[in-house]
Amino acid sequence: MENPLSVIVLAAGEGVRMRSGLPKVLHRLCGKPMLRILLDTLEGLSPRRLLLVIGHGADMVKETIGPGYEYILQEEQLGTGHAVMVTEKFLEPDDVNLLIMAGDVPLVTKDTLEGFTRFFLEKRGDAALITMEPEDPSGYGRILRDSSGEVRGIVEEEDASREEIAIKEVNASIYIFRREALFRCLRHIGRDNRKGEYYLTDAIRELVKGGGKVLAWKSTDPTEVLGINSRDQLAEAVRIMQKRINQHWMSQGVTIVDPRQTYIEMDVQIERDTIIHPFTFLKGSTKIGEACEIGPFCRIQNSILGKDVVVEESVIRECVIDEGARIGPYASLRPGTHVSSRAKVGTFVELKNTQLGRGSKVPHLSYMGDALIGEDVNIGAGSITCNYDGVSKHQTVIEDEAFIGSDTMFIAPVRIGKGAVTGAGSAITKDVPPESLGVERAEQRNIKDWRKRRSGEQGGKR
Amino acid sequence: MENPLSVIVLAAGEGVRMRSGLPKVLHRLCGKPMLRILLDTLEGLSPRRLLLVIGHGADMVKETIGPGYEYILQEEQLGTGHAVMVTEKFLEPDDVNLLIMAGDVPLVTKDTLEGFTRFFLEKRGDAALITMEPEDPSGYGRILRDSSGEVRGIVEEEDASREEIAIKEVNASIYIFRREALFRCLRHIGRDNRKGEYYLTDAIRELVKGGGKVLAWKSTDPTEVLGINSRDQLAEAVRIMQKRINQHWMSQGVTIVDPRQTYIEMDVQIERDTIIHPFTFLKGSTKIGEACEIGPFCRIQNSILGKDVVVEESVIRECVIDEGARIGPYASLRPGTHVSSRAKVGTFVELKNTQLGRGSKVPHLSYMGDALIGEDVNIGAGSITCNYDGVSKHQTVIEDEAFIGSDTMFIAPVRIGKGAVTGAGSAITKDVPPESLGVERAEQRNIKDWRKRRSGEQGGKR
Amino acid sequence: MENPLSVIVLAAGEGVRMRSGLPKVLHRLCGKPMLRILLDTLEGLSPRRLLLVIGHGADMVKETIGPGYEYILQEEQLGTGHAVMVTEKFLEPDDVNLLIMAGDVPLVTKDTLEGFTRFFLEKRGDAALITMEPEDPSGYGRILRDSSGEVRGIVEEEDASREEIAIKEVNASIYIFRREALFRCLRHIGRDNRKGEYYLTDAIRELVKGGGKVLAWKSTDPTEVLGINSRDQLAEAVRIMQKRINQHWMSQGVTIVDPRQTYIEMDVQIERDTIIHPFTFLKGSTKIGEACEIGPFCRIQNSILGKDVVVEESVIRECVIDEGARIGPYASLRPGTHVSSRAKVGTFVELKNTQLGRGSKVPHLSYMGDALIGEDVNIGAGSITCNYDGVSKHQTVIEDEAFIGSDTMFIAPVRIGKGAVTGAGSAITKDVPPESLGVERAEQRNIKDWRKRRSGEQGGKR
Repeated sequence: MENPLSVIVLAAGEGVRMRSGLPKVLHRLCGKPMLRILLDTLEGLSPRRLLLVIGHGADMVKETIGPGYEYILQEEQLGTGHAVMVTEKFLEPDDVNLLIMAGDVPLVTKDTLEGFTRFFLEKRGDAALITMEPEDPSGYGRILRDSSGEVRGIVEEEDASREEIAIKEVNASIYIFRREALFRCLRHIGRDNRKGEYYLTDAIRELVKGGGKVLAWKSTDPTEVLGINSRDQLAEAVRIMQKRINQHWMSQGVTIVDPRQTYIEMDVQIERDTIIHPFTFLKGSTKIGEACEIGPFCRIQNSILGKDVVVEESVIRECVIDEGARIGPYASLRPGTHVSSRAKVGTFVELKNTQLGRGSKVPHLSYMGDALIGEDVNIGAGSITCNYDGVSKHQTVIEDEAFIGSDTMFIAPVRIGKGAVTGAGSAITKDVPPESLGVERAEQRNIKDWRKRRSGEQGGKR
Repeated sequence: MENPLSVIVLAAGEGVRMRSGLPKVLHRLCGKPMLRILLDTLEGLSPRRLLLVIGHGADMVKETIGPGYEYILQEEQLGTGHAVMVTEKFLEPDDVNLLIMAGDVPLVTKDTLEGFTRFFLEKRGDAALITMEPEDPSGYGRILRDSSGEVRGIVEEEDASREEIAIKEVNASIYIFRREALFRCLRHIGRDNRKGEYYLTDAIRELVKGGGKVLAWKSTDPTEVLGINSRDQLAEAVRIMQKRINQHWMSQGVTIVDPRQTYIEMDVQIERDTIIHPFTFLKGSTKIGEACEIGPFCRIQNSILGKDVVVEESVIRECVIDEGARIGPYASLRPGTHVSSRAKVGTFVELKNTQLGRGSKVPHLSYMGDALIGEDVNIGAGSITCNYDGVSKHQTVIEDEAFIGSDTMFIAPVRIGKGAVTGAGSAITKDVPPESLGVERAEQRNIKDWRKRRSGEQGGKR
Repeated sequence: MENPLSVIVLAAGEGVRMRSGLPKVLHRLCGKPMLRILLDTLEGLSPRRLLLVIGHGADMVKETIGPGYEYILQEEQLGTGHAVMVTEKFLEPDDVNLLIMAGDVPLVTKDTLEGFTRFFLEKRGDAALITMEPEDPSGYGRILRDSSGEVRGIVEEEDASREEIAIKEVNASIYIFRREALFRCLRHIGRDNRKGEYYLTDAIRELVKGGGKVLAWKSTDPTEVLGINSRDQLAEAVRIMQKRINQHWMSQGVTIVDPRQTYIEMDVQIERDTIIHPFTFLKGSTKIGEACEIGPFCRIQNSILGKDVVVEESVIRECVIDEGARIGPYASLRPGTHVSSRAKVGTFVELKNTQLGRGSKVPHLSYMGDALIGEDVNIGAGSITCNYDGVSKHQTVIEDEAFIGSDTMFIAPVRIGKGAVTGAGSAITKDVPPESLGVERAEQRNIKDWRKRRSGEQGGKR
């Protein structure tokens, strides 16, 4: 391949139509800022350099996107042409061909950009641009062609004549320029238009006027080059991305019962024959093993599930769930939790930073935090680790085969020995030795006819 | 403006295709009976009078819609023409122009009705009607025009010839009549048609026949004049209304991740930069502040949320949640609850008629009812206010900085002093003074080898 | 009617595009394997015999579908023609007309198959096939007709010429053959095609060649004959089925607020004026009475609900819920539970194999398992039946009008008498007589200034 491209991403705009305190390119899509998604795609092209022109909310953009990019500040936003002008002094001799695009086009794929790049390099143009024919072209610059079909310019919608408005082919705002040709032309463009801005598109017209060769590459999938200018378009982009991801996993042998109701983020991995029920979110770096059944009403984030795991109506974050475990309905598994194989976490159960051993069960209404629970343990309903004393957190250890009575309070730090038992309703403050019963309980008293007498006192509504 | 219109709403029909015990116009749409929605829109026009013709389920309609309208009973339902006839004797001399429409058209907007009214008044017709060209015209009356394009009548679908059925322009059943012209014509219409009913549409034909001037105003948005005759159309109206509301909030700077999965009722208010995740309901008079994050799986009704509030997997009804509070996952906040700023209500927690002070936390598995909780209080998991003694409800007061051990039972009325502590598993029947520990607990006993012996007795399955 | 048809269902294929360990025909759709759905429809035709040709995963298919069918093993899968050939020796003299179709077409209706059968019998063909014109014909065999419109063959897509690919009318792969004509032709077909398979479609061409009469019956609803070859098509079939079922119930007087978000399985029954809110699943043999309000966020399986029941944010499986009961938000009702009329199951409550009497309430945070609860009982928050002692399960009986204090533990087997009361936080190990108070509690001690001293010891972060 030739000298790799240098990439300039224009990310200085405010995005007025978003009506937001957040710079437009930081709005999120399937869990990531849209600029982050684009940059990940661009890095896949192994560009020579990646320059980011920032302006509105520059500090927020830098902080969110992080180091590893060359940020160039465009202090005044005088249009896309101007944004490119400010990069000139940062360019190096080897920055020969420039891929220039906006930061608000997160749906473009590596395949498309590679195809476009190959096209430019093979055809040896001075510039190339991606065009498309969306169903609704409003908002986009229209492509002007001469009678022989050659591109002769682009007109922004607000400056277009009625005839030009009727043109269906529009500018996707993704360009490759020979750097030398670009900056030569930029010197000649003005800002005599409705917005009073320097348009990068005018450089195309200048190029054509000077006899330059401008190539157009028509994208077959207009959804890829959707620019996001409003919350409405953001929602549309979410929908397209969601559909794309779901189609992929279905083709890999995952059943998604209703793809319209299933949100899978980009970095998730799923093995075949897993069934995803509606109203399910799989987020972050989650990995789901083979033949799991997930949902409905689940949210799983940054977690790893082995095969044959069943999760219903639950929230799982930063956890590891081993083969054959069953979770829910109505469980909340919080960071640092490891549920071992064939273990069961039931209804109204919260685990936090807890190891639950193989075959162990926490069936109902329990909170286990900072607990180390062995194998084949049964935790009675209503049991709670009192892991926080108001100052710091302490561990509860429950060894293999222990049988925990309902409503047991573990005043941590405390240890329940192997095979030990606790009595229902006990506050366990001291370790219970193996095979022993630990119980904290007063004597039950039955007071005869108590209610009759009390009702009498109170005037007795029953 | 001229003499304001008098409005007649026809709401006497049964709505046979709804197959319901409820009169059609009382079926609900985004939280309100469809007739209620229409009346709110009509009142926006400041009409001279608002007459409601009722019949089927008249008492239910009156009771649901309430006072403030002039109800006219149509005892026998002999068609739309007949419904108008029964209003005649209730009209006053100043009821000069009559806007007449059915009560099952809740999606019509004030803008449309105002435009239609202006059109009628400017063109000085004897009658005007709204027409439209829906994708599927079936079920609607077809507009008959003469060769010069003037309206010459309307034919109901069941009485239409094959040629008339093919007409695309249909009657939206929204009319303005000069009152005098209308009743003159109504005297001439009969009921010689398939249904044996007096059709209001026949008055149009009579008017034309007598040389009257009938105007047609074509609506560009057929969804506005959708009449609801079946549950299927009701669902379609919900979808249209939902889309309209969501588009509005997105244009105002609210991120709605998936507008197809988000139900926002008409009177809700949302500040910008709030993010609404899928599977979320915002109902009633709810107000959401700036930069909140709501959902997924939330239902919030008649509640007020300050800025930066986060709510996940929760139900909130008639509550106030202050800035920076965090709710859920899996919390239920019931009426009369006030969660102060930076407070946290966690997982499997129910609050009812409870004040939770600034920075206080109820992280897990608790029920707080009729409680007054101060600032920086920590409520241990499994704590419960025993607010009901079987006769009446009592208050629990927990003062600032108290630290409540897990599984504390508050036998209300009871007061926990400032900075006081309760021991895990205690039933607190008496007030605990400030800075003191209140504990109700027996001594823990450990009984050695208890399990081994017991297993022996029982034949010992472990 | 004539001699009934014999039916041959071809269910031997692997379904490579499913990328699954499960044979294609066992993938589920609205709760049932797709082959099961088809067989139920076919049985509605009262066929003479029902022969299933199985191959890939034959044992799994037999086990899942069960007895009552004649299974024929196609050991090698050499195409649809071959699959039919292997059935020949199992046919009886009375198997005169054969309905042959694939097992992956679950959406076909009894009406369509009956219409098709009548058409075949009336027109007295040698063979008949269903054709359709789907929007996207790719993947289907194209119908070849001669200039007079008579069917002259079917060409599989992979063997079709460019011109043939452009044909819009495709083969739905549902056939009726005169048995004698079919097997005569099958002897002449070869496997000289791209897949190297014996195509059943080639028998059609042979029939035509030999002067046989081949009839085509065009289906007006291409969704009915959708063949499922990929997970994507499986999801599409779910959507079609879901829409079909929801339309039915709406026409019967059920309000489905958003039919896109509501999953009702085939065997569910719903009475009129019930409202189903979004994000609701009704599964299995569930029956819902009149004027119930179900959802949002509910999953109800194999359960029977009386009239006027309200269920919010809950999971209900194999339960009976009587008139006027209220469930949720956030309840889990497990198998064997019976909630009587006007009873209430509230928030974070799990019932399992429990009878809850008329007017009784379990409002919050409780687990009742294997319990028999009388009428007008109030169960305090946090109450738990300790029904499992690690060896077996025991019953808790709570008689009418008992008032259970919060956090009561029932060490089963145990009985609470009529009108008895338990003290909050008590572990009840012995029966409580009627009208008596049972309480297990130590004395509350208040230790003054405990926190101050303790903070001192610990260096005192508060």
